[in-house]
Amino acid sequence: MNFHKHLSDLPTYQAGKPLEDVIASYHILPEDIIKLGSNENPLGVAPSAKEAIIKYANLASVYPDDSYRDIKESLANKYQIQAQNIIIGSGSDQIIEFCVHAICDSTKTVLMAQHTFAMYEIYAKQCNAKIIKTTDFFHNLDSMREMYRMYKPEIIFLCTPNNPLGEALKRIDIMEFLNGISADCLVILDCAYMEYCAYKDLDYAVSPKDIVNLPNVIYLGTFSKIYGLGGMRIGYGIANNALIALLHKLRPPFNVTTLSLKAANAALLDTDFINKTLDNNLTQMQEYRKFAEKYSLEILESYGNFVTFLLHNKLNSIKIVALLLQQGIVVRDLTSYGLNAIRVTIGMPKQNEIFFQKMADILDSY
Amino acid sequence: MNFHKHLSDLPTYQAGKPLEDVIASYHILPEDIIKLGSNENPLGVAPSAKEAIIKYANLASVYPDDSYRDIKESLANKYQIQAQNIIIGSGSDQIIEFCVHAICDSTKTVLMAQHTFAMYEIYAKQCNAKIIKTTDFFHNLDSMREMYRMYKPEIIFLCTPNNPLGEALKRIDIMEFLNGISADCLVILDCAYMEYCAYKDLDYAVSPKDIVNLPNVIYLGTFSKIYGLGGMRIGYGIANNALIALLHKLRPPFNVTTLSLKAANAALLDTDFINKTLDNNLTQMQEYRKFAEKYSLEILESYGNFVTFLLHNKLNSIKIVALLLQQGIVVRDLTSYGLNAIRVTIGMPKQNEIFFQKMADILDSY
Repeated sequence: MNFHKHLSDLPTYQAGKPLEDVIASYHILPEDIIKLGSNENPLGVAPSAKEAIIKYANLASVYPDDSYRDIKESLANKYQIQAQNIIIGSGSDQIIEFCVHAICDSTKTVLMAQHTFAMYEIYAKQCNAKIIKTTDFFHNLDSMREMYRMYKPEIIFLCTPNNPLGEALKRIDIMEFLNGISADCLVILDCAYMEYCAYKDLDYAVSPKDIVNLPNVIYLGTFSKIYGLGGMRIGYGIANNALIALLHKLRPPFNVTTLSLKAANAALLDTDFINKTLDNNLTQMQEYRKFAEKYSLEILESYGNFVTFLLHNKLNSIKIVALLLQQGIVVRDLTSYGLNAIRVTIGMPKQNEIFFQKMADILDSY
Repeated sequence: MNFHKHLSDLPTYQAGKPLEDVIASYHILPEDIIKLGSNENPLGVAPSAKEAIIKYANLASVYPDDSYRDIKESLANKYQIQAQNIIIGSGSDQIIEFCVHAICDSTKTVLMAQHTFAMYEIYAKQCNAKIIKTTDFFHNLDSMREMYRMYKPEIIFLCTPNNPLGEALKRIDIMEFLNGISADCLVILDCAYMEYCAYKDLDYAVSPKDIVNLPNVIYLGTFSKIYGLGGMRIGYGIANNALIALLHKLRPPFNVTTLSLKAANAALLDTDFINKTLDNNLTQMQEYRKFAEKYSLEILESYGNFVTFLLHNKLNSIKIVALLLQQGIVVRDLTSYGLNAIRVTIGMPKQNEIFFQKMADILDSY
């Protein structure tokens, strides 16, 4: 068949065993698994969202209202923008897909930071676009600007707070940077973890309102993190009307589930759950700092719901992740990001305590 | 921005008012709306699927196991194939998207029947592919073969049973047709309504097993119809390993929700619900035939869960659909398919009776 030739260079998906099976092979009970690998909300589902799922379970047979009016109105209200500034995706991932697929082919270039969310590169490769990266360890807007001037990319990705490193960009610096980018280059501002960041330090808080009047910037948000709906696959993009109208040309009808819409709408208004999540995250992040200091581990300053430990040469991230897994603790190895590092979702106090204890054991016996 | 130029020719999505609002403006209560417009299962959600959604509502915060092992094993078991022959999509729609995006660009051609599922054309247009159609009213494999030889398309769509007309192709004819297509052309066998068809007449039943050893054919199935999960957005493609591995390169991780997987797995085994659905469909289809005869309406022979009425010149489908809507009955106008026709999902006996009564009133007063 005539599949696009460049697709053959993409790694083929290999379905592995479910994590539960791997861990079961170590004789650990499913309820004892501590999942700190995917930056899910350790508080679980917002109670109001769970209620909505149960209440509307009967609607599972019915296609969603494809206008997505209710959730768009709630988001518009939250961010003080208009419903027509919003596109809903199956996770904010899908909005990235729409953007890349709408623009990229083998003649196009995308620019991103060296260590940033892996899906940017994957979507760009699907379209055979040229990928260029700044060489700094963290996001560096000066380097970005320089590469932008040199290579004139069609898309720039900024991930703030950045997954998997955790650093964030100051609002004032982002706005200045955007000012220097011409309207024919789309800037994708991936703000999946922005709520945690804004709670920690308002200087780093960007809002959709800041960019909604710009012709070439899209703000991405998600219900997978602070709203506790990682399993429901719903996120959003916010930009000026014209850009949103264009992206809708690539949106398949019914791209999110009926129950995801109900759950997201409930979670968005669950301030109690949101506050508890934010408070737990910031409080427990301090515990991670203390742990790192105690064991002389290098921990990166994080604005997200996770922390990243850079390991020195004697410690090997693959090995440490495997040793933790054998004890039922799941964290993310960053080897695929070219780093000898692990990323740990900030869990509930008890989960974190167990992680500290097991990690200490590993370090002591190393 | 440098959006692909051909996208500007695609119609831009216009978010309309939700149907509920339209109907509310006629002072009809939500519970009195009769939805026969989207070929959803009129029995609603399978009880076992509803139970699964409620039982696992807590998992809404957790990303699905991305291997999708459980549902693949259930499907493999049902169809007597291997798990590696299966790809899971956000509806079978998404598998169509993967196929088209993996192959098409402005140098490629796709072939389809004149009146068939609208999304084939939409996905092809997203990639700027050339679209050619047979000119017969129904699927005609002789014409397809002729156009295949003449235009050498890279993709052929066969929709059996066909949405929106309802006709199906005989298994023996499909197999003969596939035999004449060279391996560099992908044939997409869209079998979203196959369960209804197989129940009605086994001569028209195609199974994934029939095609899984062919290099260039993919069978599409869905949980949206017989399994009563239209709102959960989950479907599947079945083909030989190599083809499935290629399509996985375009599948984003976590493309279906955690609860959709749980619900689908439960529904797949709910034989009582499936049998009730099939029985209601075939029994009530006879009532539609009787109604059509009584009112001298042209009704097409259907192998799906819907019937299509072709209207004669004096009747206008737009007007009839609007008149029904004012009385809380939703059916599908086929004007956008170039037809003066309406497609009606076969509902529960009471729903159908009300449709017959209101439609009779409209016809009498026309």
